[in-house]
Amino acid sequence: QLKAFIIEQLQGPSTQLLDGVHVTITAGPTREPIDPVRYISNHSSGKMGFALAHAAAQQGANVTLIAGPVDLATPPGVQRIDVESAQDMLDTALAQAADIFIGCAAVADYRVADVADHKMKKTANTGAPTLKLIENPDILKTIAAQTKPPMCVGFAAETRDVEAYALDKLKRKKLALIVANDVSNTAIGFNSDDNAVVVLSEDDRVVFEQQSKQMLAQQLIHHIATHYHKHFRK
Amino acid sequence: QLKAFIIEQLQGPSTQLLDGVHVTITAGPTREPIDPVRYISNHSSGKMGFALAHAAAQQGANVTLIAGPVDLATPPGVQRIDVESAQDMLDTALAQAADIFIGCAAVADYRVADVADHKMKKTANTGAPTLKLIENPDILKTIAAQTKPPMCVGFAAETRDVEAYALDKLKRKKLALIVANDVSNTAIGFNSDDNAVVVLSEDDRVVFEQQSKQMLAQQLIHHIATHYHKHFRK
Repeated sequence: QLKAFIIEQLQGPSTQLLDGVHVTITAGPTREPIDPVRYISNHSSGKMGFALAHAAAQQGANVTLIAGPVDLATPPGVQRIDVESAQDMLDTALAQAADIFIGCAAVADYRVADVADHKMKKTANTGAPTLKLIENPDILKTIAAQTKPPMCVGFAAETRDVEAYALDKLKRKKLALIVANDVSNTAIGFNSDDNAVVVLSEDDRVVFEQQSKQMLAQQLIHHIATHYHKHFRK
Repeated sequence: QLKAFIIEQLQGPSTQLLDGVHVTITAGPTREPIDPVRYISNHSSGKMGFALAHAAAQQGANVTLIAGPVDLATPPGVQRIDVESAQDMLDTALAQAADIFIGCAAVADYRVADVADHKMKKTANTGAPTLKLIENPDILKTIAAQTKPPMCVGFAAETRDVEAYALDKLKRKKLALIVANDVSNTAIGFNSDDNAVVVLSEDDRVVFEQQSKQMLAQQLIHHIATHYHKHFRK
């Protein structure tokens, strides 16, 4: 696989793996408002998703990048749509006609049930509030459950039992591939520039060693494109 | 006042208003963990606090900038200390021997009572969780309540009754000055580059019109320095 990848790279732009393929990628965190000044969010720099968007565009794909609040430049050749909440992200994702959908965003599982119109005030009497949460829609699951779904690729960022959780997520959400990521290792987590992952499908398990997110993104896009041409291309 | 300021600016670096004065400034949001991947935070770019740090350093102050998670470059001549939570920010602030303390950070009023060691999992049975919050220490109030407190300057970011809340905060926390900011106006809020404020003390009320945060910071530092020399300089 590595050999094929190196040959691929050396052959240069003549072999575009995703020519004419529409790839939608979500990246970064979402923000769920508590009131006009407070919110709940997740640790996510968006670097991995942006690197994937860049790598997919380099392979000739027509890339839509749906980005939560991050401080990153849009990769060349990529159409970017900025969103805030999980619901915004889902609505935007459903509006795309994708062949491949890569859910790389760290979507908030929960939002606040009753969002306050004005800033909550501390008062001596009321004490600390309790936040009632409600479950957000599951973006990947919703996309994968469409009548003609794209090939869906998920990410599982976990702090323990990483591959077990990932495999469960793959099956439960009917994904083609899942990228499992141990975020308890700070060298490869959230805001770091490196990553190391294991990609699982129903049939195989491929390990990608620690390297820059840019390099890893190129290898992942190669892996995803290969899977797409083998199993999904009409 | 404006005339004095313009003369001041034209006279150049010969008139350094804060020579040898130690100014500590907090800036940006804080992040309060829910579990290893989730947190509660506030909208705050940190731009206003960083601009104040820059302006204070330009006036010869010895500036310590205590910054929550923001994507901003450290202004020249400023000593920066990065922190995450409100408790981190307070501990760091208490360790400084400041003459003037400017609390510009959007500190989380609440943190989560029981922070989970591992990522909370969605399961079919348990339903959406409820987050029990507890009150964070009040940084400005704690600094101002020290036996030999620095001159304390607060910020009040409000969405309604802005000046009334600000004046209450000034008295309750025993501040010298409070900078009142209507964040319901998106042209001058959170992530915008402009700001417009009203600065209140026990005795006066000074309006600063909408302008860039850099320009406003220079005017505010001038106002703060004037107040310091009039009321606090030993």
